[in-house]
Amino acid sequence: MDKNNIRKATLGRLPMYLKYLESLPQEENSYISAPKIARALGLGDVQVRKDLGCVSRTGKPKLGFKTDELIESLKKHLRTNKTVNAVVVGAGKLGRALAAFEGFSQYGVEIIASFDKREVVVEDDQTMTVLPMSKFDSFCRDNNVQIGIITIDEESTQQICNQMIQAGITAIWNFTPYPLKTPEGILCKNENLALSLAHLSNQLLIINQENTHGNT
Amino acid sequence: MDKNNIRKATLGRLPMYLKYLESLPQEENSYISAPKIARALGLGDVQVRKDLGCVSRTGKPKLGFKTDELIESLKKHLRTNKTVNAVVVGAGKLGRALAAFEGFSQYGVEIIASFDKREVVVEDDQTMTVLPMSKFDSFCRDNNVQIGIITIDEESTQQICNQMIQAGITAIWNFTPYPLKTPEGILCKNENLALSLAHLSNQLLIINQENTHGNT
Repeated sequence: MDKNNIRKATLGRLPMYLKYLESLPQEENSYISAPKIARALGLGDVQVRKDLGCVSRTGKPKLGFKTDELIESLKKHLRTNKTVNAVVVGAGKLGRALAAFEGFSQYGVEIIASFDKREVVVEDDQTMTVLPMSKFDSFCRDNNVQIGIITIDEESTQQICNQMIQAGITAIWNFTPYPLKTPEGILCKNENLALSLAHLSNQLLIINQENTHGNT
Repeated sequence: MDKNNIRKATLGRLPMYLKYLESLPQEENSYISAPKIARALGLGDVQVRKDLGCVSRTGKPKLGFKTDELIESLKKHLRTNKTVNAVVVGAGKLGRALAAFEGFSQYGVEIIASFDKREVVVEDDQTMTVLPMSKFDSFCRDNNVQIGIITIDEESTQQICNQMIQAGITAIWNFTPYPLKTPEGILCKNENLALSLAHLSNQLLIINQENTHGNT
């Protein structure tokens, strides 16, 4: 099953291929070649050939890929046929930003609810429902939620993480600076935005220092 | 200057070391050893030794580091003595979330303003000033802004990027899905949150498939 583990950069280009192919006139039994796609999207031939090789093995020399089959393969890899449900815990600014973000659906993930520890959440945002944590477990089980996103500000992150695993969630996206302990079989991705910015700032200062030293 | 290019994971632990050292009673000429720090923070000896070796060369065998010197080195590497100014363009949910985020200051970066293309922005958020884009150039020059964060929703990302470079910004943190063209010497970090979630979802489905196949 390892071949399904598509690199992040490749995955990032798949929606673009899909969008382009779906924009073409739909003709039965039509073929499309990697170089043609590359030209249309301003990418390199080799890159497109490699990317498409990850999603489909049906390309034929000289002819290329059957357009409709390639569209289906892309959709399959982008999971647009079968949405994965996610929930956000934490209805602060970041949590609300993520819940309202429209970019996730193109990769087959939908954030279907937000939760907050406050039992009564007054929220008149049109796009989101904020539920109290007391409903977390039953909601996740009823809706087959597989991904949990943590955006709370406090140190109770581990407790939220445990509650998620308890409710059947198997992948956690952690936006807090607190590292999580998860049992084997649970995926955990830490997204430390402060650290990302710090790293950028650090690189910047190194460049500035180099320039200063170069000029003296 | 390459030794200053601290790895992101190491950088992520520096605030923790600093916080711990600052919590100790301040005694003149006191020394602290890597194993003592490791024990206090629940980390491995080797890791702490390696991390501290990146920020200071003054550790002495058996004695360890002079506490006050180590604190200064950590502060220097975390740039807490000299803040780097950043601005956010886009006052939507994500932009506001980033502008309100408190975690950046511990790494010496401060988001000092937000901008939006709307000339008049009505915003009663206590923590943030939203300025019109017409003031972008002069504001960035007057305040020596070095980092620009783009969180707008549209395809005008490249135009905003050009405006940032024009205003003297040398590092760009791009939260849009649109790739940017930047001249040499400009740092650019793309933060595609949709793609991060997609990658997590993809790994999850591979695991599920493996389990299904394993059970049949």
